[in-house]
Amino acid sequence: MRLAELAGVLGCELHGDGEVEIVGVGPIEAATAGEITFVGNPRYARHLKTTRASAVILPPSTPPVALPTLRTAEPHLAFARAIALFHRPVAQAPGIHPTAVVAATAVIGANASVGPYAVVGDGVRIGEQATLGPHVVVYPEVTIGERFVAHAHVTIRERVRIGDDVILHAGVVIGSDGFGYVPTRAGTIHKIPQAGDVVIEDGVEIGANSTVDRAAVGSTIIRRNVKLDNLVMIAHGCEIGAGSMLAAQAGLSGSTRIGRNVMMGGQAGSAGHLHVGDGARVAAQSGLTNDLAGGLTVAGTPTIEIALWRRVVTALPRLPELLRRVRQLEKKLANGASSPPRA
Amino acid sequence: MRLAELAGVLGCELHGDGEVEIVGVGPIEAATAGEITFVGNPRYARHLKTTRASAVILPPSTPPVALPTLRTAEPHLAFARAIALFHRPVAQAPGIHPTAVVAATAVIGANASVGPYAVVGDGVRIGEQATLGPHVVVYPEVTIGERFVAHAHVTIRERVRIGDDVILHAGVVIGSDGFGYVPTRAGTIHKIPQAGDVVIEDGVEIGANSTVDRAAVGSTIIRRNVKLDNLVMIAHGCEIGAGSMLAAQAGLSGSTRIGRNVMMGGQAGSAGHLHVGDGARVAAQSGLTNDLAGGLTVAGTPTIEIALWRRVVTALPRLPELLRRVRQLEKKLANGASSPPRA
Amino acid sequence: MRLAELAGVLGCELHGDGEVEIVGVGPIEAATAGEITFVGNPRYARHLKTTRASAVILPPSTPPVALPTLRTAEPHLAFARAIALFHRPVAQAPGIHPTAVVAATAVIGANASVGPYAVVGDGVRIGEQATLGPHVVVYPEVTIGERFVAHAHVTIRERVRIGDDVILHAGVVIGSDGFGYVPTRAGTIHKIPQAGDVVIEDGVEIGANSTVDRAAVGSTIIRRNVKLDNLVMIAHGCEIGAGSMLAAQAGLSGSTRIGRNVMMGGQAGSAGHLHVGDGARVAAQSGLTNDLAGGLTVAGTPTIEIALWRRVVTALPRLPELLRRVRQLEKKLANGASSPPRA
Repeated sequence: MRLAELAGVLGCELHGDGEVEIVGVGPIEAATAGEITFVGNPRYARHLKTTRASAVILPPSTPPVALPTLRTAEPHLAFARAIALFHRPVAQAPGIHPTAVVAATAVIGANASVGPYAVVGDGVRIGEQATLGPHVVVYPEVTIGERFVAHAHVTIRERVRIGDDVILHAGVVIGSDGFGYVPTRAGTIHKIPQAGDVVIEDGVEIGANSTVDRAAVGSTIIRRNVKLDNLVMIAHGCEIGAGSMLAAQAGLSGSTRIGRNVMMGGQAGSAGHLHVGDGARVAAQSGLTNDLAGGLTVAGTPTIEIALWRRVVTALPRLPELLRRVRQLEKKLANGASSPPRA
Repeated sequence: MRLAELAGVLGCELHGDGEVEIVGVGPIEAATAGEITFVGNPRYARHLKTTRASAVILPPSTPPVALPTLRTAEPHLAFARAIALFHRPVAQAPGIHPTAVVAATAVIGANASVGPYAVVGDGVRIGEQATLGPHVVVYPEVTIGERFVAHAHVTIRERVRIGDDVILHAGVVIGSDGFGYVPTRAGTIHKIPQAGDVVIEDGVEIGANSTVDRAAVGSTIIRRNVKLDNLVMIAHGCEIGAGSMLAAQAGLSGSTRIGRNVMMGGQAGSAGHLHVGDGARVAAQSGLTNDLAGGLTVAGTPTIEIALWRRVVTALPRLPELLRRVRQLEKKLANGASSPPRA
Repeated sequence: MRLAELAGVLGCELHGDGEVEIVGVGPIEAATAGEITFVGNPRYARHLKTTRASAVILPPSTPPVALPTLRTAEPHLAFARAIALFHRPVAQAPGIHPTAVVAATAVIGANASVGPYAVVGDGVRIGEQATLGPHVVVYPEVTIGERFVAHAHVTIRERVRIGDDVILHAGVVIGSDGFGYVPTRAGTIHKIPQAGDVVIEDGVEIGANSTVDRAAVGSTIIRRNVKLDNLVMIAHGCEIGAGSMLAAQAGLSGSTRIGRNVMMGGQAGSAGHLHVGDGARVAAQSGLTNDLAGGLTVAGTPTIEIALWRRVVTALPRLPELLRRVRQLEKKLANGASSPPRA
């Protein structure tokens, strides 16, 4: 596709030679001739002089470059669309693979692709245009909406309810038992049956090997358009508000309620039974131990407001020196007291 | 079931209308008419006025409420039993599914349910009443006790030994190779064969996608009634004492020995070759770098006694201010020394 | 095997009775008669007096012991070789299991062992002597080198490229979608197609349930002899240099580039788009937020040089006391100023 044509498709403003033929999309450091690339993060701007890409997508603010350029107020979005234009996805064969074990009482919508060795239990209902990868296991009585995608080795336990346009990556487990035990007076440990379920609303995407536990009673709820990265843990009885995003290896303890459009960084965690307000942000590796008001950005374990946290961690390496300085002040003052300056 | 009847079954004291019909159990905020609920955590007591539940289980200490109430000294246990009463678990069909691949030399006890596409290797012995979910893979020479439950996609590597009443949730891996390499003088990295095994005693439950590595030599040992949450990592050669519990995403490095009834919070970690005494507790996200005596509760990385840790993290946000104050003191004292207050 | 013979095979110097018959290798605390053991870590030296092992491998520096001893400058390597000598690995049956679903267009090299229910997609090419465990899923257009080992339930997504001598443990996911979204001005969240791939070079080993995401464009790259432990997360577009090792539950955010022979401890993490120089070391649970020069060893979140970090965490428990001392100094000085010591 000629660059001028691509500019039209992506709704960008063309600067430079529109006749360049674009055949793909590449990262700025590794792009080859014929590829268009993208600079969103200023860290990569220095590569603009050396990249072998044939064109670049830039935000309006970036200074002009020698390379043919597409400019747009939403460069990241244009980049995403450019990738989609040249992407050649691998599609699983349509139909139900002869090795799939689908219960007689299960209903799978039209235009499904069910991969080899998938197992679909009794009473399961799956909407149209579903793709179940190889070895996906759906336990009984699960309901799933339209355009569902589950990659290899996904497990969905009984009675989980999933909306439309949900994507589960390989190895995801939905509806595993929550971690609930009662120590008895008799000295034994009694397992609390995890009799609740999980509700996953429309547009949710969950990364590889993440786990979402079923509630003891009631539901664990993942609202519309929530995005969970890989190896994330959602404990029983949690609720995550619409549009929230949890980066890889983050974890929520039981019954914590996260508002809308909350961001949690990688390896961040939360204690149980907390409430996090809409639009709050929790930095990577941070540990929430108290409710968090909406709109705040916090860091640390336990978390504090992030601007303060930055000052604290900047000061922290000076702590050993500070100890010495205080010791010296104490000495001085003790000396001063015993032999005060003469008038 | 009438509430009066339920009181009898659960061994609780009934307050209020015993004729109320109870049809299920629900969480206090989402319970509907006909459900009994529970308040264990005081955070939820405020919902007692607005809940639509028809009855509630309370500890003796809670003030009287308008709702019909069951009181007991073990309210959490009564709640667990109530859930079990109304729970309708999904059972896998009995027998060995025709698609399961069971080695001729494997022995599976009576009343087993082996799911579709389960694979059981040579020389495996499994006790009575086992449930192997779909796609469970048991490598050769594994021995497993009675009433075993493994959910979909569990992997048990060769020669692992498992006791009675063990539950493994979906995606668990037992007996994967430990992480062991020797850098050689020749500059290469030599893999240490992981020739040991894993021993899991009676009553252990392990959460979804957790991993327990086999020892290089000898055994990794998980003692009676240990409970591991999801995405937990137990490295090669560790031993976890009876009744200990590790919350989600916690991890132990190699050869660490944990005593009995130890609790580790979510995302907590331990260095290798440590010893943790009976009844110790490690707060979430904490990092053990030294042996820990029994009975202590610690937090932080590296860990310190938790009461001290709380004082430290309370003081921490004042560190930048403290730096300024010390600077000011130094100035004052310097000024004072050069121009002392007049007598 | 007689100990004298074993000394020869392992290239060790024999001290004591060479006629002892050695039948296996054991850990010092649990070894039984007939086993040889090993003391690398001085923590275990005290067990030399009580071990029931029949011989021990020691470094030259350790004082003489009563037990028959093999000494070598590379005791850890000798130990690894001794384990290999006595190890009886479980081998999967050769050939392609009749239940494996191998696409007609896939090419699998000679002497392969493909386990039950393995799925190999269109256009896949796998080198000689591959072992695919039960339920391994290889998506279309993947290429894999020689002597490949994948344990049960491994998932390799489309177009991943893998070199020779690679080992993937159970539940590993390679090539899952990276975590990439663009918030649009229209208020929606747009998924960035993850159209790139993953390149894994020769000699890489990846632990159970770890995940390596495919790049949005270009490749996520794991260079020669990298070793990843269990539950590790490598985000899209990362590159890990040859010989680097990441311990369990460590995680890299997107586009981070790690040099050669870098070590990251368990549960350590890195922000995205960073560069870590050759030979750097990041302590367990630490959080990188900036580039890290080669050769440095750092700890903490955010990371600082480890010697400084040790002094800081040693001083940290004294922070509450320090606050009190400064308050006292301020009082003293205030008193001193208002009523100065008389001359």
